Amino acid sequence: VDTQNLLGMLQTNRQLMDEAILEFLPKNSDTKEINLLYEMMRDYPSRGGKGLRGSMCLLWCELFSGQKRNALITAASLELFQNWILIHDDIEDGSEMRRGLPALHRKHGVELAINAGDSLHGKMWELLLTNRNALGANTTLDVLLEFTRMLNETTEGQQMELAWTSRNDWNISEGDYLLMVTKKAAWYTCISPCRLGLILSPSSRDSSFPEKLEQIIEFGTHLGIAFQIIDDVLNLTADESKYGKEILGDLYEGKRTLILIHLLTRLQSGDREKVVEALTKPRQSKSDRDIRWILQLIRDHGSIDYARKVAITHSDRAMKLFEMISSGQSRLHPKVYDETKALLEYLTSRDY
Amino acid sequence: VDTQNLLGMLQTNRQLMDEAILEFLPKNSDTKEINLLYEMMRDYPSRGGKGLRGSMCLLWCELFSGQKRNALITAASLELFQNWILIHDDIEDGSEMRRGLPALHRKHGVELAINAGDSLHGKMWELLLTNRNALGANTTLDVLLEFTRMLNETTEGQQMELAWTSRNDWNISEGDYLLMVTKKAAWYTCISPCRLGLILSPSSRDSSFPEKLEQIIEFGTHLGIAFQIIDDVLNLTADESKYGKEILGDLYEGKRTLILIHLLTRLQSGDREKVVEALTKPRQSKSDRDIRWILQLIRDHGSIDYARKVAITHSDRAMKLFEMISSGQSRLHPKVYDETKALLEYLTSRDY
Repeated sequence: VDTQNLLGMLQTNRQLMDEAILEFLPKNSDTKEINLLYEMMRDYPSRGGKGLRGSMCLLWCELFSGQKRNALITAASLELFQNWILIHDDIEDGSEMRRGLPALHRKHGVELAINAGDSLHGKMWELLLTNRNALGANTTLDVLLEFTRMLNETTEGQQMELAWTSRNDWNISEGDYLLMVTKKAAWYTCISPCRLGLILSPSSRDSSFPEKLEQIIEFGTHLGIAFQIIDDVLNLTADESKYGKEILGDLYEGKRTLILIHLLTRLQSGDREKVVEALTKPRQSKSDRDIRWILQLIRDHGSIDYARKVAITHSDRAMKLFEMISSGQSRLHPKVYDETKALLEYLTSRDY
Repeated sequence: VDTQNLLGMLQTNRQLMDEAILEFLPKNSDTKEINLLYEMMRDYPSRGGKGLRGSMCLLWCELFSGQKRNALITAASLELFQNWILIHDDIEDGSEMRRGLPALHRKHGVELAINAGDSLHGKMWELLLTNRNALGANTTLDVLLEFTRMLNETTEGQQMELAWTSRNDWNISEGDYLLMVTKKAAWYTCISPCRLGLILSPSSRDSSFPEKLEQIIEFGTHLGIAFQIIDDVLNLTADESKYGKEILGDLYEGKRTLILIHLLTRLQSGDREKVVEALTKPRQSKSDRDIRWILQLIRDHGSIDYARKVAITHSDRAMKLFEMISSGQSRLHPKVYDETKALLEYLTSRDY
């Protein structure tokens, strides 16, 4: 499976999920204010993310010989999760851009955007309830339970990050960072999508099912950490036209990344204080000069290379766990196995 | 059933629901940031609302000969709904106080409060999923579906109100107001609690069940409208120590109420413009003098009496529909019938 094939597969999946989502979300209301709500709810889903989380779920379902059509609603709901939580994250993080366009709260104000996020959140559960006819009541509930776990972890991770920012806390260890990333990113990007794929496959009736569900937590943790670190690296190094988000936005937002944590351990206390002071300023008071200075320090101290190395350690570990989880599976689908592996490699070596 | 008995019953129900909620919500984490999240999630539930919505659900379940214990988780989840959505509403409406204490975002900042609301929202669904053992998969899903309907309506109503505020739109008819209130308040305060009670009772197996579910929408709409109008009246007339929220807060927030809509239709265009201008000012620029002047106009034009009259029309209609829905029910529980009736009367004639 080469990158072109992989991107084609992702594109196909995305279209299927987009259709399911945009078909499901309400379109028109006679009340103009409600019409605006519907428009806001359809905004992020229409901007076209990559559909990575939903695709991961579809692949893991097929990998264990499940039917893609049985996982489609759930995969689309994972994308809805991503969309509603990004509306709120963008407010919480003070992000200005999302997928190349102004963040929703910048278009409509914070008040309406919080409410639109809540409404879209509700739609996620409603969409998941439509699993009932095709999958039966019990599987529908198993899927819902996984979503509640995913949401618990994600909001706990977000809380850690927000609390660091609001308390101006830069006294963060690598371990703190990894726990935050596991909760904030790994669960909804990797762990739950894969677990849901397995839940929706015939392997959910195997005796090894509970053990595999557990193993996926470790696998997805390493994969998610690698994915997030690479995302943080890209924020400093990527080509803005391909990246979609704001380049250097993490520095302007004062986001805690492995790169900065590494840098801060390497600096003498004078420089350390200056960097912390610069990062701590409110976004609008940060000068481009400060940011360029910090970026230069990051390069000088090899913090980007360090982060890349840590990412590789975690992605290697994830690959080994993937081999272990998928080995000895009589039902394993060989073509999907190759595709899944290609996706895992892609996730941990992106250069867009 | 006199008021004392009724308040005792509400108190008993509230204790049962509080126990279920505080038992369920997470308490301690080794990570101090997550500990703070847990504390924030437990904050509003610990402040002690009246538990009206949960009690309504319990009563309607018993009214149709259901078991209170079968409805307890669902009733507690209705209270959780109220709690998480109030966290977000308080941000969206710029409210400063909630149940006699500072609003959550005033204690911890908007960012953490949005996230804590999302986390508590997730806990609501997780709590509802615990219905599975006692009620079975199908009833659990029926209850979840009602919650998604309730959330759709509530966020649509909130959107209407927020859009009016953000666009500075005072060109609102009584019909617009009633639609907003039905969506924003009647669904989660009256319609869904009663429907859920019925869903959790043995009457859900009767042939008349779908018809009753529909009738409750009309009943609960009238009840909810009466309830909300009385709430708006109380905001201008109540004793702050009993009321819990901020007296005259609606005027400071520029909230659209039937009282103001009535007043604006009665004013000459000069005064009308002045009132709209005063209401439109940002909260912190509103002078106490302006607010007192508007309050005097409201009194002079009989707008409070008008609102009370409209409330009575709707509560009378709700009572008639209640008689209709509960008539000819062989299974009807007579003591609970009296209690429910007393609660309906209490809701539409509060003076606290």
